[in-house]
Formats: sequence, C-alpha cells, structure tokens
Amino acid sequence: MGDIVDQLTQALGADVVTAGPDVDKRYHCDWSAIDPVQPKALIRPRSTAEVSTALRLCHTAGQAVVPQGGLTGLAGGATPRRGDIVVSLERMAGIEEIDKVAATMTVAAGTVLETAQRAADEAGFLLALDLGARGSCQVGGNLSTNAGGNRVIRYGMAREQVLGLEVVLADGEIVTSLNKMLKNNAGYDIKQVFIGAEGTLGIITRATLRLHSRPLSRATAFCALADYASVVGLLRRMQSELGGISAFEVMWHDFYDFIANHPTTKQKPLPDNYPYYALVEFSGSDPDHDLNRFEALLAKAMADGAVVDAVVAQSEQAARDFWLIREGHGIDTKPLVINFDVSLPIADIDSFAAECRAALSAKWPDSLNVFYGHIGDSNLHISVMMEGYGSEVMHEVDAVVYQAVRAMKGSVSAEHGVGTLKRAYLGHSRGAAELSVMRRLKQALDPKGILNPGKLI
Amino acid sequence: MGDIVDQLTQALGADVVTAGPDVDKRYHCDWSAIDPVQPKALIRPRSTAEVSTALRLCHTAGQAVVPQGGLTGLAGGATPRRGDIVVSLERMAGIEEIDKVAATMTVAAGTVLETAQRAADEAGFLLALDLGARGSCQVGGNLSTNAGGNRVIRYGMAREQVLGLEVVLADGEIVTSLNKMLKNNAGYDIKQVFIGAEGTLGIITRATLRLHSRPLSRATAFCALADYASVVGLLRRMQSELGGISAFEVMWHDFYDFIANHPTTKQKPLPDNYPYYALVEFSGSDPDHDLNRFEALLAKAMADGAVVDAVVAQSEQAARDFWLIREGHGIDTKPLVINFDVSLPIADIDSFAAECRAALSAKWPDSLNVFYGHIGDSNLHISVMMEGYGSEVMHEVDAVVYQAVRAMKGSVSAEHGVGTLKRAYLGHSRGAAELSVMRRLKQALDPKGILNPGKLI
Repeated sequence: MGDIVDQLTQALGADVVTAGPDVDKRYHCDWSAIDPVQPKALIRPRSTAEVSTALRLCHTAGQAVVPQGGLTGLAGGATPRRGDIVVSLERMAGIEEIDKVAATMTVAAGTVLETAQRAADEAGFLLALDLGARGSCQVGGNLSTNAGGNRVIRYGMAREQVLGLEVVLADGEIVTSLNKMLKNNAGYDIKQVFIGAEGTLGIITRATLRLHSRPLSRATAFCALADYASVVGLLRRMQSELGGISAFEVMWHDFYDFIANHPTTKQKPLPDNYPYYALVEFSGSDPDHDLNRFEALLAKAMADGAVVDAVVAQSEQAARDFWLIREGHGIDTKPLVINFDVSLPIADIDSFAAECRAALSAKWPDSLNVFYGHIGDSNLHISVMMEGYGSEVMHEVDAVVYQAVRAMKGSVSAEHGVGTLKRAYLGHSRGAAELSVMRRLKQALDPKGILNPGKLI
Repeated sequence: MGDIVDQLTQALGADVVTAGPDVDKRYHCDWSAIDPVQPKALIRPRSTAEVSTALRLCHTAGQAVVPQGGLTGLAGGATPRRGDIVVSLERMAGIEEIDKVAATMTVAAGTVLETAQRAADEAGFLLALDLGARGSCQVGGNLSTNAGGNRVIRYGMAREQVLGLEVVLADGEIVTSLNKMLKNNAGYDIKQVFIGAEGTLGIITRATLRLHSRPLSRATAFCALADYASVVGLLRRMQSELGGISAFEVMWHDFYDFIANHPTTKQKPLPDNYPYYALVEFSGSDPDHDLNRFEALLAKAMADGAVVDAVVAQSEQAARDFWLIREGHGIDTKPLVINFDVSLPIADIDSFAAECRAALSAKWPDSLNVFYGHIGDSNLHISVMMEGYGSEVMHEVDAVVYQAVRAMKGSVSAEHGVGTLKRAYLGHSRGAAELSVMRRLKQALDPKGILNPGKLI
C-alpha cells in the first residue's frame, strides 16, 4: 500500500500531489497568518472525480484533510495542523454556465469571486455576493464560510445566493444537487448543511448561484448623527421610503476620529466632532428620480434633526473616497491590531459598544479601540490597537470581548466564521443543545472525523 | 407504566391528551382529505415543556408522533397513520415579541399566519410570507414545510424569513436557538435542518422571523403575450427597470380560457384569444412616481410588441378581481381535480407544459388540463380535471406528470412538500447520493424514527 502520500501520488499523479517539504508557504496558513504549519502534502485536484479519489483514500487511511480556497479567511479555518493533508480547489476554477433565462450561474468551487462577479456583469446580471477579498477569495470558500460582506442588508448572506451545490463527502461520495429552481421542496434541502460548515462536513466542488438584476442607479452619502436611536431611525426610514438600501455602514466617533485624522487619509467628508457617522448607499432602478429622492429624504431628515450633517457623493470617485474611510486603512499601520467580527441584536449594539469599550480601557488604558460595522445586519466590527505588548495579549483581549458578547447574547462570529480562533468561544453564543445538534450532524456526515478536524466544532 | 396514552395523560393531564375515539375528525387528515385516519390519541400541549414531555415519553415507548399545524397541507404530511399519536400545536399561539429596532418578531408555532401578518402590519412592518391558506395555516407548519406562496419572487421562501427557531427533538430535548441577528456564523446554522423537514426531524415550537419594510405603493396589471420568450423577457425587464416586482403569475391559454369563461367569473380582464397571460404586481416605495413608471414601462413594452395587450388595475377592487382569475376558483367545481405543484428551470417550463399536456391528452383525451404558476420562482401548477373516473386514476395521472418532471430534471414538489403523496416520486427529483444524505440526517436526529414516519423520506 505505501503511506497515504504515496497512495495519493499513485492514484492522482505527481502533478496533483506535492509532498510536504515541497509545499509552498502560502498553503501553510490563511490571511490571519497565525501559526503556519507545513502540511503532510498538498493535493490540487483538477476535477470532482479527483477530489473524490483523494477523499476516498484519506478516509480509508483515517487521514485528516483540510480544504483550502483563496486562503483569505481570518479565523484559521483553512490552516493545516501538523500531519494534515491540504486539498486546494484552486485548479477547479471557471464559469461552467450562465443561464440567462433562469438568472443563474454555475461555477467551479475554485473560481475567484471577482471572476464570477465580472462574468455575471457581462451577462447583464449582478452576483450579489461581495466582500473586500473579492480579488483572491474563491466561491467555494465563500459558501463554506457563508460569507457576508457589504450587501447583506439588501441581498442576504452567501447562503441566500445558493440554489444548488455539488459536494464530496468525507468518504469520497459525490453528491450532485445543482438545482436551478428558486422553489424546490423535494425533500430536505441538504445544501444548507454544507453552507457555512467550514469544510467540516464535505468539500464543495461546484455551485449554482442565483443572479439578480443589476441596479440602474447608485447614490452614496456620508451622514453625521447625534445618537444611536437616530442611526437606527435613519436606517428604517431609508429602507421604507427609498427601498433598495444596499449598504448602511455605521462608524462610532472613535473610529471616525482615528481614520479621518490618519496621515493616509486625504480628505474628511465631515468634521470629526459628531458622535456617529453612517455611510449610506442606495441602489435603485429609476436613474431619472433616484438621486433626487435620496437627496430629498436626507434634506428632510436634516430639517427635522434626525441627521445633523450630511454630504452626498457627487461622483463615483467621491463615493469611493467615502468607502476608503469606512474600510479603515490606517488601522493596519499599528504594531498590534486585534480585529473582531461579532453580532448583536440591533437594539443592543450601542450599549454593547459602550460596555466593551469600558472593559477594554479599564484593563488596557493605553489601547485604542474603534467600533464600526454593518449595523443593518446586526454586525459590529471592533479593532483593538495596542503598542508594547506581545501577541500573547491577544487571548486576554479575546476573553474580554467575547465575555461582553456572551453577556448580551450576541454571536462571536457574525461573518468571519469560527475556524480555530473562535472555537473556544463557540459556547459563548451557542447552548449545550445547539452544540449537541452540531455534533450529531458532524457524526452523521463525517463519522471518522477526517474533514478539517479541530475547526469550528 | 400503563400504555403510552395513559402515561401521557398522567404526565400532561386529561385536558391535554384526548384518546383516539374522542378525537375530532378534523385531526384525521389534512386539506387533501385523502385517507383520513383516527389517531391513537391527540395531544394539545400548552408549552414547549409539554411538547418535550410528550416526546420524551413517546421516544421511550417507540411511539410514532405526527405534528400538526393548521392542517392546510395538500401532501398528506400531517395525516396520521393508524396507531400514530398526533401533536397539535394549536394551543401554542401568540406573538411573544416584536422588536422594532431589530425588525423581528418572535411567535409561538401555533400562531395563525394571518394573525402574525396583522401584528407585523400594526407594528409598521411587513411579514413577507403569504399564501392562500393564511387564515388557517400556522407559522410552525409554514416553516416545517418551507412554504412558498405569492411573494417568493421578492422576499424568498419561508426559510428566508427565519432568523431563529426553537425545536423539540425526537427524544424531548429542547433546542432553543432564537437568534435575532441577520449575520450569525457561530457554528452550523442548525435551524436550516428543521425548516422544510415536514416534522420528521423535530417539532418547531417557536420562531423568530425577519420583518421587512411595508411597501408604500402597489400597481397591478393583467397582460397578454404572444410567446413564452416574451413572458420571460417581460419578467426580467420589470425586475431590472422597476425593481420590486412582488408577483409575476403566468397563465397558459388553457387556464385563462377555462377560468375567464367560467360561470363564476364576473368579468374577463382581457379577451381569451392570446397564448399567454401574466398578472404582474409591483410594490414600490415612491407613491408619487411608481404608478407612472409602471404604466410607462407597459406602454413601451406594448409599443415594441413585447406585450400584445394589457390592463392596469385602477382600484384595489380591480386588482383583487385580477387575483380571483389567477386563483382559479372555477377549477374546484369539477368532479375530480388532480393538482400539481412542480418546478423546473425557467427556460424549460414552456416545453415541459407542452410535453406534459400532450402526454395527458394522449392517455385521457377528454381530460381538461390547465397550466399556471409563479414563473419567476420556477414554479408551475397544473390542474387536471376529469369526469367519469374513480379516484384510482390519480396514481396514473401522477405517474405521467412526474415522469415528465423527471425527464426535464425538475422537482416533484416546488412548495407543497412531499408528505405521503409524493414520497414514491422523491427519487424522480433527487439522486441516490442526495437521498443517502437525507437518510443520514434523519438517522442522526431521530434514530428511532418516531417523528412523522412514512412522510417525506
């Protein structure tokens, strides 16, 4: 038989299997860059059949397997442990079909998100999934982590874009379920189990995605608000009176103050003395009236005090500049930055921010903590910037933030996933019965535990 | 110990448990009225704890349990077999909370859909789930069957409205996962497993639902079109240029001809000599312009020949009259009506209708077969009307229709579920590997097979 790497090489060829010492460092960890490990081998299959062969052999051998997409995750979900074999989907890339009548596209799992977005656009549609890593992340990874991003408020998470999946199970069985229908209640909707499972229940090899109409207009504003109630009020008013709000990004004063005054920021859209800021994007279908309606609503909101200051982007460049502020480039210039991706009921986000900020400042008075997020999706990001500490402080900071999340019944992972980094905190957001159901699903689909062990659950 | 009914009565009281002979006939079957059976007993719990107690005892005894909601299903999914115990959720009704900031509502599973819709409306929101049975169906049943309905094209299926669930597992364990966050990737999204499982994996006891903004305008038109390509073209054009298409209901000539000329129909919106008809509803947020935009688009479509005739409802009553046509009330006056709820890739629906019509007419030349459906959702309904046959012909008609569905890779159940009626045909739409995953999930969550046995899988 030989060892598992020999078996894989014999079955798949030396072109597909790379032995550990020859594996390029980029397969040693994800973008978190935490704890890189050289895997036992790297497999780069060219087809679903090759994924199946690889898993069948690994399953028989009890060999742990770590699926990898574009490696843009931040939770360690695609990082191998010592002795693991990595399966990269990068060679299984390409748009297999765009069905313009059904408004669907079928892509191989290794397709880079931006490639899929462009193909949809060229066919006259919108692939609504979008996130900062679009140029590197792969669709299979997006679905395995149920990626979120900027447009969730309008179009939903990655899950909502999926109509059909092809998945290879732990034992190598290929489950092809490439449905194109919006309505299909023929039995359990099994694709749901694999979406967001971080590669622990199967390896996604192909997907059929739903496409949307492309928006025909876009308007973007940067607003200042006096209190959190006004922030939520503006969100609901815009959703009701405009429809089609495609982003509603909120920045607490600490975030705006830091970014707007950072040396890399060219221009502040608004003064830095307001308590809250919101970047609002409206995508419509009526180019003749949409900008007028957007500006009229903002003028009314300013007249009645709901918005205290606002500027509407007069060009695409101006809108991009607003987004540069929100993307918070400046934060990454600090020596130690610990980023969080949590969610809370919308009503509680502001008091959570206050409590969390107080707890962090009490313990680390010189830390700089900034709060921002996709509030309409319940999603808050926190960046904790520190100087003069080693990386061991990260676990202490995690404990403080996740304790605050637990106390307010929030989620330790809104959109980034659990991976290895948040695994210890999963019980902060899920009860014993929920965890027990998760374990039953894992046991049912991967009884030998070879798929991405040590991740998520 | 006594028998299981005695045990249940002792644990829950005679007010909760009704022995078989005393069980009202309405619990003997669903709206399909097929094969009614008196159950061994009826349990009507008042709380999740009582559901848990009932399941714990039944699990120990290996007693089969059939969950019942509003009994408006058409697939036999809530009909007991001889010896089954029915658990009705009807006493667990009520709106527990509306969170206006989060835009969510939490309801008990037995809440009638229309009650929940009204409560959402009174709070200033839209509960987007809507179907004909709204006055009788219950939210728990809607979620267990992943109900579809009229607004799926805009807001998605029942699944898309669910943020959190409470479920009682087969062994009585209560899994409370009443999440309010739009983004929550803390582990597997276990609620997805129970949605659409038709009560075979757990009993849903509570749900947290997402609410949407209420539309501020509505425009409805009845259009005639020359060919199927024009039908799909109009759908995509309206979605792109109007946004917010909330219904797009297509009627083939045979359907319109039958209904428009039926004695119970007061008025035809359009002459009956066109090949296709579409009822189109646009829900917008700009009352000042929406009707004008809608009429302008229709005028343009008529000018360039995409639409051959159209009438726009000038009052709410006129819009309701259009819907009465689509609801096809004359169909139920025929002695034997066999209704189908299938889905197909949108590009294939018209050729499917032609092939299916030909196959039915070849075998039963005097049958009257009409085709209609939610085309934007890939969903086609078929009503086969026959005279002079016994109900045994139903199985033969099923076989013809589902064979045509299989040949075109469609789904034997778009929105009505599988229940008992379509169970034999599940393999027409799902492959061996998909069915194997379903059985693994069933085995993982209900290893003794006590939950709704004989249904779905």
